[in-house]
Amino acid sequence: MPSRSPAGGNALKTDLYELTMAAGYWQNKVNLTATFELFCHTMPRNRSYLVACGLQQAVDYILNLRFSAADIKYLKRLPVFRHVKPAFFNYLKRFRFTGDVWAVPEGETVFANEPILQVKAPIIEAQVMETYLLSVYHVQTMVASKAMRIVQAAHADGVARGVVDFGTRRAHGPEAGVLAARAAYVAGCIGTSNVHAARQFGVPVFGTMAHSWVEAFPKEEEAFEKYNDVFPQNTTLLIDTYNTLAGAEKLVNMKKKRSINAVRLDSGDLKALSKKVRHILDEAGLKGVKILASGNLNEYKIQELVREGSPIDAFGVGTEMVISRDEPALDLTYKLVETQSKSGKVTYTAKSSEGKETVPGRKQIFRQYTPKGDIARDIIGLFNEKRPSGARTLLEPVILKGRLKKKLPDADHIRKFARERFLQLPLELLIFDEPQALETQYSDKILALKKKVLG
Amino acid sequence: MPSRSPAGGNALKTDLYELTMAAGYWQNKVNLTATFELFCHTMPRNRSYLVACGLQQAVDYILNLRFSAADIKYLKRLPVFRHVKPAFFNYLKRFRFTGDVWAVPEGETVFANEPILQVKAPIIEAQVMETYLLSVYHVQTMVASKAMRIVQAAHADGVARGVVDFGTRRAHGPEAGVLAARAAYVAGCIGTSNVHAARQFGVPVFGTMAHSWVEAFPKEEEAFEKYNDVFPQNTTLLIDTYNTLAGAEKLVNMKKKRSINAVRLDSGDLKALSKKVRHILDEAGLKGVKILASGNLNEYKIQELVREGSPIDAFGVGTEMVISRDEPALDLTYKLVETQSKSGKVTYTAKSSEGKETVPGRKQIFRQYTPKGDIARDIIGLFNEKRPSGARTLLEPVILKGRLKKKLPDADHIRKFARERFLQLPLELLIFDEPQALETQYSDKILALKKKVLG
Repeated sequence: MPSRSPAGGNALKTDLYELTMAAGYWQNKVNLTATFELFCHTMPRNRSYLVACGLQQAVDYILNLRFSAADIKYLKRLPVFRHVKPAFFNYLKRFRFTGDVWAVPEGETVFANEPILQVKAPIIEAQVMETYLLSVYHVQTMVASKAMRIVQAAHADGVARGVVDFGTRRAHGPEAGVLAARAAYVAGCIGTSNVHAARQFGVPVFGTMAHSWVEAFPKEEEAFEKYNDVFPQNTTLLIDTYNTLAGAEKLVNMKKKRSINAVRLDSGDLKALSKKVRHILDEAGLKGVKILASGNLNEYKIQELVREGSPIDAFGVGTEMVISRDEPALDLTYKLVETQSKSGKVTYTAKSSEGKETVPGRKQIFRQYTPKGDIARDIIGLFNEKRPSGARTLLEPVILKGRLKKKLPDADHIRKFARERFLQLPLELLIFDEPQALETQYSDKILALKKKVLG
Repeated sequence: MPSRSPAGGNALKTDLYELTMAAGYWQNKVNLTATFELFCHTMPRNRSYLVACGLQQAVDYILNLRFSAADIKYLKRLPVFRHVKPAFFNYLKRFRFTGDVWAVPEGETVFANEPILQVKAPIIEAQVMETYLLSVYHVQTMVASKAMRIVQAAHADGVARGVVDFGTRRAHGPEAGVLAARAAYVAGCIGTSNVHAARQFGVPVFGTMAHSWVEAFPKEEEAFEKYNDVFPQNTTLLIDTYNTLAGAEKLVNMKKKRSINAVRLDSGDLKALSKKVRHILDEAGLKGVKILASGNLNEYKIQELVREGSPIDAFGVGTEMVISRDEPALDLTYKLVETQSKSGKVTYTAKSSEGKETVPGRKQIFRQYTPKGDIARDIIGLFNEKRPSGARTLLEPVILKGRLKKKLPDADHIRKFARERFLQLPLELLIFDEPQALETQYSDKILALKKKVLG
């Protein structure tokens, strides 16, 4: 589904240098075809795998990137473009992406240095995309990778407790809330509180009530009754505004409570309170009323609550997930790996900056499996290298010559796929604290090329 | 300046419960006027003050919030609204904000529990804003507060080294990059690499070149010359693609280098390299060529570089600033503090949830100063309480009866104001690690009211 905001409006949401370089390539007649790869340079300490997420937004942007007359007028006025020939701006006016994009499907697990996205196009087209592509991939891959840990924690004892994204208010602005909701759902959350994300991506939407609702009525029980009058189906009551146990008792004493589906605990000792509330509800014959817990939760706290046998049926997770608090950034980067001249001459490129070396050459990821279907190892090889026996290739064509090859999967399909991929992870990768990373290898051909280019 | 994307498109970028509560208030004929306050509940450990930022986006949203026909159609189809009367959706169709907004000006320093924004309006209008307002304030106040520390570090020895925001690619999506650029500028950065932010907010825009530019040419010196041909004014050369010192030598050997304004170091030991590069440049008579450093910088690293006398003239800061890595979230919240019935009866409200207590009553912040003009203390009092002697009130009217009281200041004005406010901070608040927080006090009247409401 294309994004609702016209992508033309996105052309300047980029670093200035993408556009000065574009002008520089154009004016110097640099007619190379370039291949750039987007990858995570080093794995965060607390992550053993990443969940690739962001392709849909990348594709929406790539296919719809246009420079409007207003964009061009603005750029022309910038002093830095003073010596750029007017014909460059005519080029921008006609700008369309004409190249190829290969990518790992969204929801796939990836590791350090594996290209998640590959853009092969005339160098200007491939260059100007850098900032925007990094931005949509960075936030979603980070949030999906965090969310998958949180969902794992909620399922730790084999019970599939739902995790709902409640993070919109702490996301980095309204758009980030929508992107985080999508990433969280793809990674296994059962839904989100974000209505826009629900509409745009078909994510199930959930809601309870705020403390202000309870406070707006003279008595807590009145707040419960009045809400129930309007929403007599699957209501979740927030019972911690004043005193959680008293709140539970008020539910028990409600006249019409048949439709109360769940209670929400949002503060205090969730382990102790959930047990006491469960007891109150059970004693009153309300065994069907579920308990939803929220309040600064993350995978560690959920793991502990589950281990301790807290009778919690679902979790609402916000801040910690949408900012990925323990690892709030990925070392995601977009690097030139080779160029091809009009005459067909290929040049392999890499930087040798201290601590930031890159590996030249367009790549493919070859994944091998154990007999029982777990990931055994990944070999990062050259794009056209012979596939090692039994290996699957992870990078697939998405856009060829500027055209979308086939419709991208929707969020539900990605979510199922991500779950399948998660189940292929070796157990030692599922440890939360400083987990072991999967051993990825470079193929001999790649290593030989690297040696040749970097010496 | 109104935001470019029609705010109507933002109506569903919110939590579902805001809209179900709206329906609940409507159907139950809850005709209260409500006052909500947006504030930071507890200060992050590593912050002693916050820089209020987000009012412009809040106002754009409040004044332009509309539910489109498509929004309403979508909501009507959601099963949760099944029992809501159609007249509620007619209400949504006509929705306009008719209330009052008071706020602390952007750029002002604020502390825990101080209302940054106050919305007084019919309860539905004030309630539905919660999620969006939190989201735009959260990211910008967090980034501005982090950026001010970074700028402080860059000025630590009394030299006003520029800090430029390079964070767009690691921001949480394209919109977050624009918001972060604005917040960073307001807090004292000299500009941003984000072109959209430059256009929308008048922030100065900066750019250098990427490693890919250098790699796209057979030789580094050719890449430098070719860039310089197109941008013969104020060019910054990135010299670390292969070897920083060799890169500096290549600049020295360039034929036309008069317009080279700066070199950029993006990797390695910045202290050692900046000294060696400075030496190379000075020896060649290029004393006017400045050194810009970047690469995972934050206030701690910049402080160290400055202390060690590294000859760095400006810093490019990205990831660490736009995600506020050491404190990547604020405990920002939006709480109902009082309601007023049609008959004029005022009810003060607060929650007593464990660890999340709130303080009832509409508030004002009274700030007192030392004789030399530093902040002495803040007293949080009741809105209509008599101002303590010598105190300034921080909350000002912004929207009255749905109308903007006066044009909001632009980013340059906010930036100057923020700088003034920064200079009023007591020195003990300027320590980076677990700094002391300012002592804020509640007035006797507020404390008495709290006791009355919460017991």
